Amino acid sequence: MNIEMIEAAAGRLAGEAVRTPLLSSPFLDEVAGRRVFVKAECLQQTGSFKFRGGWSAVSALPLDERTQGVIAFSSGNHAQGVALAARRHGAPCVILMPADAPRVKIDNTRALGAEVVLYDRATGDRDAIGAALAEARGLTLIKPFDEPLVIAGQGTTGLEIAEQAAEAGIGAADVLVPCGGGGLSSGIALALQAKAPGLRVRTVEPEGFDDVKRSLEAGEILRNERGSGSICDAILTPAPGQLTFPILARLAGPGLSVSDEEALAAMVAAFSRLHIVLEPGGAVALAVALFRPDTVEGEAVIVVASGGNVDPAAFRSALGRFAGA
Amino acid sequence: MNIEMIEAAAGRLAGEAVRTPLLSSPFLDEVAGRRVFVKAECLQQTGSFKFRGGWSAVSALPLDERTQGVIAFSSGNHAQGVALAARRHGAPCVILMPADAPRVKIDNTRALGAEVVLYDRATGDRDAIGAALAEARGLTLIKPFDEPLVIAGQGTTGLEIAEQAAEAGIGAADVLVPCGGGGLSSGIALALQAKAPGLRVRTVEPEGFDDVKRSLEAGEILRNERGSGSICDAILTPAPGQLTFPILARLAGPGLSVSDEEALAAMVAAFSRLHIVLEPGGAVALAVALFRPDTVEGEAVIVVASGGNVDPAAFRSALGRFAGA
Repeated sequence: MNIEMIEAAAGRLAGEAVRTPLLSSPFLDEVAGRRVFVKAECLQQTGSFKFRGGWSAVSALPLDERTQGVIAFSSGNHAQGVALAARRHGAPCVILMPADAPRVKIDNTRALGAEVVLYDRATGDRDAIGAALAEARGLTLIKPFDEPLVIAGQGTTGLEIAEQAAEAGIGAADVLVPCGGGGLSSGIALALQAKAPGLRVRTVEPEGFDDVKRSLEAGEILRNERGSGSICDAILTPAPGQLTFPILARLAGPGLSVSDEEALAAMVAAFSRLHIVLEPGGAVALAVALFRPDTVEGEAVIVVASGGNVDPAAFRSALGRFAGA
Repeated sequence: MNIEMIEAAAGRLAGEAVRTPLLSSPFLDEVAGRRVFVKAECLQQTGSFKFRGGWSAVSALPLDERTQGVIAFSSGNHAQGVALAARRHGAPCVILMPADAPRVKIDNTRALGAEVVLYDRATGDRDAIGAALAEARGLTLIKPFDEPLVIAGQGTTGLEIAEQAAEAGIGAADVLVPCGGGGLSSGIALALQAKAPGLRVRTVEPEGFDDVKRSLEAGEILRNERGSGSICDAILTPAPGQLTFPILARLAGPGLSVSDEEALAAMVAAFSRLHIVLEPGGAVALAVALFRPDTVEGEAVIVVASGGNVDPAAFRSALGRFAGA
């Protein structure tokens, strides 16, 4: 992995990805006690940064492989990102999802042109089913994070942060990044190392699912004990990746975590003050800036708001609880 | 009014206003039956395009006048836009609001550093109170739309639309603009005439408050019969302005209108598909694109999403009704 791979991905993404804005609000600055800048990746195509990695991987495939098609395992943002990238390339796309995935996610992925194959989470072996499908049809697997082309795609977010921070006059700051497997945070870390060395990545996870934070402390890959139980479903990953962890260990500061309550309150603050829609997992970095300011350094902080594909009922409930609505 | 005034305003706004993105979603394209591009001004400073006009006017004042301070009559987006512009210039700012304005709007305007003066809507004469205050303290009145510097500021939205449409390969399209007094739509119309003559402004208003639409049809300024009764409070204005109407009569296509129900449904579509927060009045142009596609021409349509300062309870209610939440 190097900066040239990220810049090459940026070249392939030009005109396809949204250059998402860096937003701010005097109200958030006041809560946080410092200037807060929010990189709004919820405004990205398909509602999350995952489109960057999906496009980066699909667009780099040799034409004969691309024509055969791609496959991804995901019930969430990675599925939609890969599906749209494949459709725009005219490439067949299979998404393997558990049969109990939310109906709206299945429907949305199909509406983006993908063939959704469902498996039984209790009895089916996802990897075996996927491998058999890939073999039978000649599909290329697009992994969600532990894949250099995907990390390079997510890293284009970091190139934009470097430019936008310079425009805003921010030379040194912590850059808080919601973290599942570490594709986004490691990609951004590589980009910032090359383009804005005063900016330092810090990963943010839900409490109880802080495998990256604990792995960084231990200096080795540790796993979460549980696989579910946080509302931040988009960033619940068992363990950091084999490729992403060494990058984070080298470049990132200490890991951070927040409670589900703090993530929901940040989601509502983003609604009221920035007028963006975040999913809980996409709001954890903002939650640190607003509610745990003592864990961050500097006069300004940059947070990535990584995705906005939230269930309307969950959003409605959060508005009721945290906006007095 | 000319394009040079708009370009001068853009120069003064550089580094202050957000260059808001032009967003899209394949899901919206499918509903509309054509490509839909959304200029997300809800992401602007203070949550609406009004910051552009406020900044344009305050920044153009001679230093001695600016130091005396400014005054505006508004309980809504214009108040916040002027207040933040004044604060950043170090200029005193008085906002005259009816005493029955929503508490949150009064609090937000005060939090942006303005002195809020309340008057009784039933017994007080707003213009007389404002004139007396302005006279006593040497304040400059910043009108909400019928003021060349304000129109020039709002017109900077049109400069960005012209650039972004060219980048997206859109040479000809209707540009749908939520319309109250016509400051935003007339400013955009002037900018597009100079920079993207294939793009044509169409005003969008709430049904029953379509003074601009009827005025354009009649060729003279007509007034609304009612002053309240739509949820689209941000764009309920009695009549088009003396400055804005002739510009619209010369440059805009036929006016459009939508129901409150359509505005709410568009607000929810923007939540689900674009991950932006709109107020009902900010969603009326998107509502035309989605729900009245036969009234628009061309293979693509550009809509301005003009503001996002929505009451959380109203938003919550709309999610319940239109997202099945």
